[in-house]
Amino acid sequence: MIHTREEVTNMILSAKVSKGIQWSQVADAIGLSKEWTTAACLGQMTFDKKQAEIVGDIFGLTDEAIAWLQVVPYKGSLPTAVPTDPLIYRWYEVVNVYGSTIKELIHEEFGDGIMSAIDFNMDIQREQNPNGDRVNVVLSGKFLPYKSY
Amino acid sequence: MIHTREEVTNMILSAKVSKGIQWSQVADAIGLSKEWTTAACLGQMTFDKKQAEIVGDIFGLTDEAIAWLQVVPYKGSLPTAVPTDPLIYRWYEVVNVYGSTIKELIHEEFGDGIMSAIDFNMDIQREQNPNGDRVNVVLSGKFLPYKSY
Amino acid sequence: MIHTREEVTNMILSAKVSKGIQWSQVADAIGLSKEWTTAACLGQMTFDKKQAEIVGDIFGLTDEAIAWLQVVPYKGSLPTAVPTDPLIYRWYEVVNVYGSTIKELIHEEFGDGIMSAIDFNMDIQREQNPNGDRVNVVLSGKFLPYKSY
Amino acid sequence: MIHTREEVTNMILSAKVSKGIQWSQVADAIGLSKEWTTAACLGQMTFDKKQAEIVGDIFGLTDEAIAWLQVVPYKGSLPTAVPTDPLIYRWYEVVNVYGSTIKELIHEEFGDGIMSAIDFNMDIQREQNPNGDRVNVVLSGKFLPYKSY
Amino acid sequence: MIHTREEVTNMILSAKVSKGIQWSQVADAIGLSKEWTTAACLGQMTFDKKQAEIVGDIFGLTDEAIAWLQVVPYKGSLPTAVPTDPLIYRWYEVVNVYGSTIKELIHEEFGDGIMSAIDFNMDIQREQNPNGDRVNVVLSGKFLPYKSY
Amino acid sequence: MIHTREEVTNMILSAKVSKGIQWSQVADAIGLSKEWTTAACLGQMTFDKKQAEIVGDIFGLTDEAIAWLQVVPYKGSLPTAVPTDPLIYRWYEVVNVYGSTIKELIHEEFGDGIMSAIDFNMDIQREQNPNGDRVNVVLSGKFLPYKSY
Amino acid sequence: MIHTREEVTNMILSAKVSKGIQWSQVADAIGLSKEWTTAACLGQMTFDKKQAEIVGDIFGLTDEAIAWLQVVPYKGSLPTAVPTDPLIYRWYEVVNVYGSTIKELIHEEFGDGIMSAIDFNMDIQREQNPNGDRVNVVLSGKFLPYKSY
Amino acid sequence: MIHTREEVTNMILSAKVSKGIQWSQVADAIGLSKEWTTAACLGQMTFDKKQAEIVGDIFGLTDEAIAWLQVVPYKGSLPTAVPTDPLIYRWYEVVNVYGSTIKELIHEEFGDGIMSAIDFNMDIQREQNPNGDRVNVVLSGKFLPYKSY
Amino acid sequence: MIHTREEVTNMILSAKVSKGIQWSQVADAIGLSKEWTTAACLGQMTFDKKQAEIVGDIFGLTDEAIAWLQVVPYKGSLPTAVPTDPLIYRWYEVVNVYGSTIKELIHEEFGDGIMSAIDFNMDIQREQNPNGDRVNVVLSGKFLPYKSY
Amino acid sequence: MIHTREEVTNMILSAKVSKGIQWSQVADAIGLSKEWTTAACLGQMTFDKKQAEIVGDIFGLTDEAIAWLQVVPYKGSLPTAVPTDPLIYRWYEVVNVYGSTIKELIHEEFGDGIMSAIDFNMDIQREQNPNGDRVNVVLSGKFLPYKSY
Repeated sequence: MIHTREEVTNMILSAKVSKGIQWSQVADAIGLSKEWTTAACLGQMTFDKKQAEIVGDIFGLTDEAIAWLQVVPYKGSLPTAVPTDPLIYRWYEVVNVYGSTIKELIHEEFGDGIMSAIDFNMDIQREQNPNGDRVNVVLSGKFLPYKSY
Repeated sequence: MIHTREEVTNMILSAKVSKGIQWSQVADAIGLSKEWTTAACLGQMTFDKKQAEIVGDIFGLTDEAIAWLQVVPYKGSLPTAVPTDPLIYRWYEVVNVYGSTIKELIHEEFGDGIMSAIDFNMDIQREQNPNGDRVNVVLSGKFLPYKSY
Repeated sequence: MIHTREEVTNMILSAKVSKGIQWSQVADAIGLSKEWTTAACLGQMTFDKKQAEIVGDIFGLTDEAIAWLQVVPYKGSLPTAVPTDPLIYRWYEVVNVYGSTIKELIHEEFGDGIMSAIDFNMDIQREQNPNGDRVNVVLSGKFLPYKSY
Repeated sequence: MIHTREEVTNMILSAKVSKGIQWSQVADAIGLSKEWTTAACLGQMTFDKKQAEIVGDIFGLTDEAIAWLQVVPYKGSLPTAVPTDPLIYRWYEVVNVYGSTIKELIHEEFGDGIMSAIDFNMDIQREQNPNGDRVNVVLSGKFLPYKSY
Repeated sequence: MIHTREEVTNMILSAKVSKGIQWSQVADAIGLSKEWTTAACLGQMTFDKKQAEIVGDIFGLTDEAIAWLQVVPYKGSLPTAVPTDPLIYRWYEVVNVYGSTIKELIHEEFGDGIMSAIDFNMDIQREQNPNGDRVNVVLSGKFLPYKSY
Repeated sequence: MIHTREEVTNMILSAKVSKGIQWSQVADAIGLSKEWTTAACLGQMTFDKKQAEIVGDIFGLTDEAIAWLQVVPYKGSLPTAVPTDPLIYRWYEVVNVYGSTIKELIHEEFGDGIMSAIDFNMDIQREQNPNGDRVNVVLSGKFLPYKSY
Repeated sequence: MIHTREEVTNMILSAKVSKGIQWSQVADAIGLSKEWTTAACLGQMTFDKKQAEIVGDIFGLTDEAIAWLQVVPYKGSLPTAVPTDPLIYRWYEVVNVYGSTIKELIHEEFGDGIMSAIDFNMDIQREQNPNGDRVNVVLSGKFLPYKSY
Repeated sequence: MIHTREEVTNMILSAKVSKGIQWSQVADAIGLSKEWTTAACLGQMTFDKKQAEIVGDIFGLTDEAIAWLQVVPYKGSLPTAVPTDPLIYRWYEVVNVYGSTIKELIHEEFGDGIMSAIDFNMDIQREQNPNGDRVNVVLSGKFLPYKSY
Repeated sequence: MIHTREEVTNMILSAKVSKGIQWSQVADAIGLSKEWTTAACLGQMTFDKKQAEIVGDIFGLTDEAIAWLQVVPYKGSLPTAVPTDPLIYRWYEVVNVYGSTIKELIHEEFGDGIMSAIDFNMDIQREQNPNGDRVNVVLSGKFLPYKSY
Repeated sequence: MIHTREEVTNMILSAKVSKGIQWSQVADAIGLSKEWTTAACLGQMTFDKKQAEIVGDIFGLTDEAIAWLQVVPYKGSLPTAVPTDPLIYRWYEVVNVYGSTIKELIHEEFGDGIMSAIDFNMDIQREQNPNGDRVNVVLSGKFLPYKSY
C-alpha cells in the first residue's frame, strides 16, 4: 500500500538504476520534453492517464503507483532551503547574486510584475565550445503584471 | 567616509531615482551588457578603473565612492535565504521545483560536474507573444567536470 | 537623501499619525480600492506619477520621496518568516492549518496549477452579525494551470 | 496498532487514490462543506462519532482508525514554516505582501483586535471569467477585540 | 519626527529609569490592571486618547509620541523566537514541556477548540510562602470551540 | 525491544484511543493532579515504581515499557520551536506578547531573579461564564533570586 | 538620553579600552567575585545603588547610566544561538558533546530535576601545569528536584 | 546488520533500562571516570578493544556492536541547536548568559586563545549543603594560545 | 530493492566495521588517492564501472548496490548547516574566522573570482613534529575569474 | 568614542580603499605572514602594542583605535551561518562535501581527536599552471587527541 508520492518517486529511481533507463527515453516515449518529463517522474508535475501508463510500463510500476502518478504532488524537490548539492547550489547562487539584477531589468522592461513560474518552460542543451562545452539553458515565462484595482 | 560597499550601492540607487537613470543607459555608456552592468552597480561585480569613473560620472559619485566600485564586493544581493519578493521568489521556486530535474539532465548529458556560476552569463529579453509577452532568459555556464585524482 | 523605499514608508506612517489620516481617505483621493492603496503606501505596490503626486500631497512628501513611490519596491511586509503579530499570525495559521485543504480542493476543481497572487485582488468588509460582527474577506485570483510541454 | 493521527491521514490518502474518491463526495455524505470535511480528513479537524463512521465506511478504515478520527489532532498541515509547494506558497505570499495592509484596514474599521481563525469558515468556488477562470475564496472570521482590564 | 512605535517604547523606558517610575503607579493613574498597563506601555496594547495623555504626562512625552500610543502596534515583544532571558525562557519552557499536557486537558474538558489569547487576562501576584515566596499567576481566556460548517 | 521513551508514549496514546481512557481517570488512579499525571504519561515527568505499575495496568503495558516510565525522560513535548497547533500557539503568543510585561512586573515585585519552572505547578479549570465558559489556569512557581557572590 | 542597557555596556567597554581597566580591579572595588562583577558590567546581572556608583566612578559614567546599571537587564550575551567565537564555542561544544552525559549522571545521583543556573556560581582559575597551564572552572548550582503534585 | 553508531547507543540504553545497570558500575568495570565512560556509551567517545568487550559484556551486545564501539563516532548528543530539555538547557543558559564573561576573564588571565574542549575533563559531584544539596562540577581544559605566524 | 544512495553508503560503512577495512586499502585497490576514494565511498563522488566493481568486491555489495555507485549522488555529507562534530567543526571555524581573510588575499593576488571546489584536490598528511604531530592539508583549486560580458 | 572592534575594522577598510594599501604591505611592515596579518586587521586576531602602532600608522588610526586593536576580539567574520559570497561558499562547500572524508582519514591516521584551529597556520599561494593558475593553500594544525580519563 502506497501512502505518499515520494514512495513512487523512489520506485522510479530504483528501477532507473537497475534497468539503466535514460530520462530522454522516457520523454520520447510520452512525446514531451525531457525537462517536463523528468520533473514529472521526480514528483513535481502531474501525468495524465495515458502518460502515467507509459511511464508505469517503462519502470515496471504497479497499478496503484500508476494511479499516484496522476495525483497532483506536493511540489518542492530539495531537502533544505539552501541546497547542499554543488550543481543545484550554483543555481541558488545565481538567484542570490543576480536576484536584484533580474528584478531591476524585468521591471525596467515590463514595469511591476513577475515572470511566471507556472506558465513557464525550460530547455537545457549542450553548447559545443572550444574552451570547454557549456550548459545552455533557456527559461521562458509569461510576464504577469501587477494591476491596481 | 565610506565604510562598506553597501553604502555606495545605496548612493547609486538614490541617484538613479532622483535623476531617472536607466540601467541600459549605464550599460551603453561602459559598453557592456545590461545584465553584468546592473549586477556591478548593485554591488555584485567589480568595475575596473575606467568603468568606475564612467559610472561615477553618471551617478555623481565622489572619488572615494569610485574607489569602492573597484573593490571586490562581498556578494549576495538578497536579505533572506528564501526571498520574499514575488519576482525573485519565482526564480527560487524554479530552483526548488526543477532543481532535481536540472541535476538529472545535466548529469545525463555531461556526467558528474556542475554548470559554472562564475564562467557564466545571462541575457534577459522581452519575447513578443499574442497570449501575453514573455520574459525570455538565456543562461550559459561552462560545464566543469569532477575528476578523480 | 533617501536611500531606500522603507524610509518613504516610515515618512508616510509618521505623517499619518501626526495628521490623523485614514487609509480610506487616501484610497478615495486616488480613486482605487483601500486594499491596493494601503498596500502601495506600505511599500508593496507601485504608484504611477499621478497617484504618487496625490499621495505625496496628502502626506506632505518631498519630490524625492514622490519619485521613490514610483519605483517598484522589494516586496514582503513582515519582519519574520512566521509573523509574531496576533492579527497577522491568524492568517498564517489559516494557511498552515488549511493549506493542504486549499491545495486539494483547488486541484479537485481545476487540476494542477495555482491561484495567482499577482492577477489577484482582495476585498475586506465588516459583516454585521448579532453574535459579534465578522471580518469578511473575498480573495480572487486567476487560476493558472501547469501545462506539459 | 495505530500510534499517530498522521498514519490515519495516510490511510485516507492511500484509499482516496486507489478508489478514486472525491472530497466533495465525502462532504456530501456527511452533509457539511467540502472545506471543513477535507480539513478534517487531512487531520486538522475532529469528527464526531457519526461522521467518523461514515468517513471510515467511505475509505474502508478499521475501527481503530475510526476511533482516531474522533481524537483532536495536533494541527498544522505543512512540512516547513515557509511552504515549498507553489499553490500553497502563493497564499503565504499574500500574507507576506498584504499582511501589513490587512492589519491596517481591520484596525481602521474595528480597532485593536483580530479576525478569529477558530470561529472561522472558508468557501472556495470557481468563478467563470472570459479572461480565464478565477479561484474565488470567501473567508469569514469573527472579530475579537482586545479589551483593557 | 517619530517613525515607529518602538521609538516611543524606548522613550518610555528611558524616562522610567531617569524618573524612577513604577509600572503600578502608571496603572493606578489610568485605573487599570498593572498587567495590561505595562503591556500597553511596552508597545503591545493600544491606549485610548485619555489614557495616552495620562501616560504622556507621567513620562513627559511629546504630542507626537502621545499620538503614537493610540495607534495599534505590531505586537510581539521578544527579539528571538526562543527567548534568551532566563525569566522569559522559563515561561517558554513551561509551554514546551507542558504544551501537549495543556492541549490534552483542555480538549478533555472542552472538546476541540482553543483558549483565547485575545479575550484574555492575566494577574501576577506574590504568594507568601515559608519555603520561599512564590509567583502566582492566573491566566483566564475564553474557550473558543471549533465548529463544523 | 524498546529503544526510546517516545515509543512508550506512543503506546500509551494508542491504548488511550482504543480503550477510551480519560487522563483524569489515570490521575485518580495514582492519586495525583491531572496536570502532572498527563505530563508524565506524555513523557515529560518520571513515575516512581508504584505509579508506573498502575499506569502500566491501565494502558496494558509490558514490563519493559513500565521500566521505561521510571527513567527520567528527555523533556520537550513540541515538534517545532514555534508550535503550529493553534491551542498551543496561543500560549506561545502569550509569552511573546506579554513576555516583557511578565519580566517587568516580576522584577518590580521581587527584584532580579526568575519564577521557577521546576518548583512549579499548574492547575487548569473550567470557569462557568454566561458570555461563554473560560479556561482558568493557575501557575505557581517559586521565586528564585539571583544573588551576587 | 540612554534608551537601552546595551548602550551602557558599550560605554563601559569603551572606557575600559581607553583607560586600561581590568575586570579584577572592578571586582576588588566592589568586593565581589570577578565572575559576577564582569557579568554585571556586561549587562547580565543587576547592581545595587552602591555598587553602581562605584562602577560608574571607575568607568566615568553619567548619573543616567548609573541608574540603568540598577535596572534588571534582558539577559543573553551572545549574538547568535550557536556562538561563532572559538573560546565560547568550545563551551557550547562541551554542552553539545557532554550534554546527554551530564543529564544521565545528575539523574543517576539526584533523580529527576535540574542544576540551577540562578542559585549558581562560577569560579575561573589558572591551574599551573608543566604540560601547559590549564583553565580550571568550578560550577556550583543548587539541585532543584521535580516533584509530583 | 548495524548501520550507524546510534543504533548501538539505543541498544545500550535499552539494555540499561531492562537490566537496571548504573553508569558508575560500567565506569568501575573499565576503571575510568563515570564522566568519560558515560559519554563513550552514549556515542561521544571511542572505546579501545578491551573496554569495548567489557562494555559489550555488561550490556549483552553482539560482536558487531562491540566493533562499532571502537569506531570514532560523529559527535554531538543533542537533537536541536538550542536544547529543549530543562537540565541541559540550564547549561546552555550558563553559556549564553556568562559567555561574554568567561571570554573576558580567560583573556584577562591568559591573553588570546581558548580553553580546550579536547584536552579536557569534567568531574560531577554531589555537594552536601544544609540549604539543599548542590551539583558541583569541575571543568579542566588546557589553555591553547593563538600565536602570530 | 535499494531506493537511495545513502542506503549504499550505510552498507559500505557497515561492512567496513565488520571486516576491518581501511580507506587507504580501498584507494590502493582502485589506484587513486585516499581522499577522492573515501569521498566516493561516502556518497560524494561517482565511481566508474570498473572502480565500482572493485569497491563492490571489497565491501561485498550486490549488483544493484554496485549500479548505484555509478549514479551521480546528491552531494553534502553533513546533517546540519553548522556541523556538531568537533573535528569537522574546526574546519567550519577556519572558514568562519579566516573566511574574510581568504577572500581578501585571493582577490589581492588574482582579482575578482573564486577558487574552484570542482577542479579541486586535497591531500591530507601526518607531519612529524616534536611538539606533537600535525595534520598537514594541501588544498589546490583552479582560480576561476569573473569576467565582464 | 569607539564602542566595538567592528568600528575599527571599518576604519581600516575605509582607509585601505582611500589609500590603496595592500595587505602584503602591512604584513611586511610588521614582519609576519599576510594570512595572520589580514585576519588581525579584519578583527579576528589580536595585535600586540608594537604591531598595533605600526598598523595604526599605516591606516592613520587614532590612539583609541590603536588601543582597540590590542583587545581580543569576538571572532567570526561572516554575516550568515551559510556564507552567500561565492568565494567563501566554495570553502563551505568543501567542508560540506568532504567533511565526512576529512573526518574518516584523520581518524584512520591519528585515532580519535581533532586538527587544531588554534595551533594552526595557513599559507595561500598562486600556483602557475598552463591550464589556468591555481590557488594553493596549505593548512597545518596540531593533532589534539581525545584521551580517556
